[in-house]
Amino acid sequence: MESSSLTERHRFAEAERDALYKTVFNRRDVRGQFLPTTVPDEVLARVLYAAHHAPSVGFMQPWNFLVIRSQQKKQQVHQLFSKANKEAVELFDKDKQKTYKNLKLEGILESPINLCITCDRTRTGKPVLGRTHMKTMDLYSSVCAVQNLWLAARTEGLGVGWVSIMHEDELKATLGIPEHVVPIAYLCIGYVEHFKDKPELETKGWLPRMEISDLVNFEEWEGSAQSSDDQELLSTLAEMSDFPTGFPVR
Amino acid sequence: MESSSLTERHRFAEAERDALYKTVFNRRDVRGQFLPTTVPDEVLARVLYAAHHAPSVGFMQPWNFLVIRSQQKKQQVHQLFSKANKEAVELFDKDKQKTYKNLKLEGILESPINLCITCDRTRTGKPVLGRTHMKTMDLYSSVCAVQNLWLAARTEGLGVGWVSIMHEDELKATLGIPEHVVPIAYLCIGYVEHFKDKPELETKGWLPRMEISDLVNFEEWEGSAQSSDDQELLSTLAEMSDFPTGFPVR
Repeated sequence: MESSSLTERHRFAEAERDALYKTVFNRRDVRGQFLPTTVPDEVLARVLYAAHHAPSVGFMQPWNFLVIRSQQKKQQVHQLFSKANKEAVELFDKDKQKTYKNLKLEGILESPINLCITCDRTRTGKPVLGRTHMKTMDLYSSVCAVQNLWLAARTEGLGVGWVSIMHEDELKATLGIPEHVVPIAYLCIGYVEHFKDKPELETKGWLPRMEISDLVNFEEWEGSAQSSDDQELLSTLAEMSDFPTGFPVR
Repeated sequence: MESSSLTERHRFAEAERDALYKTVFNRRDVRGQFLPTTVPDEVLARVLYAAHHAPSVGFMQPWNFLVIRSQQKKQQVHQLFSKANKEAVELFDKDKQKTYKNLKLEGILESPINLCITCDRTRTGKPVLGRTHMKTMDLYSSVCAVQNLWLAARTEGLGVGWVSIMHEDELKATLGIPEHVVPIAYLCIGYVEHFKDKPELETKGWLPRMEISDLVNFEEWEGSAQSSDDQELLSTLAEMSDFPTGFPVR
């Protein structure tokens, strides 16, 4: 078989590939634009099903999904955020504090659905294939579930925001999460007024988007290009960083 | 504006949505089917660019990408795997050991590209917005980059396998990764002979796929359905778990 057919055999159609890139570049961490519009259970089921098909170490599937719809529970969680956020702002330099205070960092009360994705570290007993040496692998599996859900949600027109400014032990107590389970992500989910073109922390001057060509090295940490292939990769990446976010890369 | 138009406004076209689900359900952890076929730099650049557009806590972008093409470096890493895997197998019960030994768990030497995705915990100084309370958030950002790359690679027809059976300190030494940087994922990347229909650990009887409806609870840990909406979600999920993996969910 020719080399070209080997590379094409399992490739998706161009339109399908572009849909994946479009999703990746248009996914946003949504905090401020949630609408109260009900999310149909069919749609929620699809994004959860996508999460459940994330990779997991040793096929452990360590995740659970806690769906929170009651305003009472949301208010309890929001109080945890408010307390932690007051502590958080004090950690920044005075000049950063002003920007920080102007950022809306969560949509707990406004989003119709809150979702906590967890990692049950004891799910399949000990030992776990693939977690014998790197003990954090099960946590990472649950993170992959979060990212699957986030991308699926974007194609459904649903915004997702990840709230991490809370004391973990307080969140666990509020949701009754037992000792051996780690809350990986507390997500706010709902339809949105609009999706921003770029991450808010970029447009509001918190930090710039880094140049990807500065983040790629070869053979080892800080290793420079070893071959013409490596040089070519860096050149291609340098050109790509000029592509407008929000459009598929061609 | 009517409720239906609010839910549809930011939704992708059905074919684009289905492409995302198709990618999610057809992504596999590839260990054994790599072809030596060269991966064009343009394709590698696209999947790296997708990784770089993962969400990151405080827009920290803590990732670096170490591209490894030399057989010498791959051999060094493969030795770390071989050593750790011998230790790993001993941790399982005798009856599991036979299955374990029959599993191919990495494609380090056969895949044309190895890629280490890292997390620089000091990338933007201290403190980091959103990591003030949950200290693992930067690690999770790099995991999201892994998952973006993995999904993009699938649409390009590229297989990806995540190797985690290594001592972290030995991998860091081999790749010259400094103290403050965590190697999150060591990936094998390349075109493949075929993609399996289901995860190998499922088909080879290591563990079964769990029922997603057993993993969804309401309002709190182990909380049962509170409303007809919750009941409806569970029913929808129970039906979905019969969908054949590999087809978009409708």
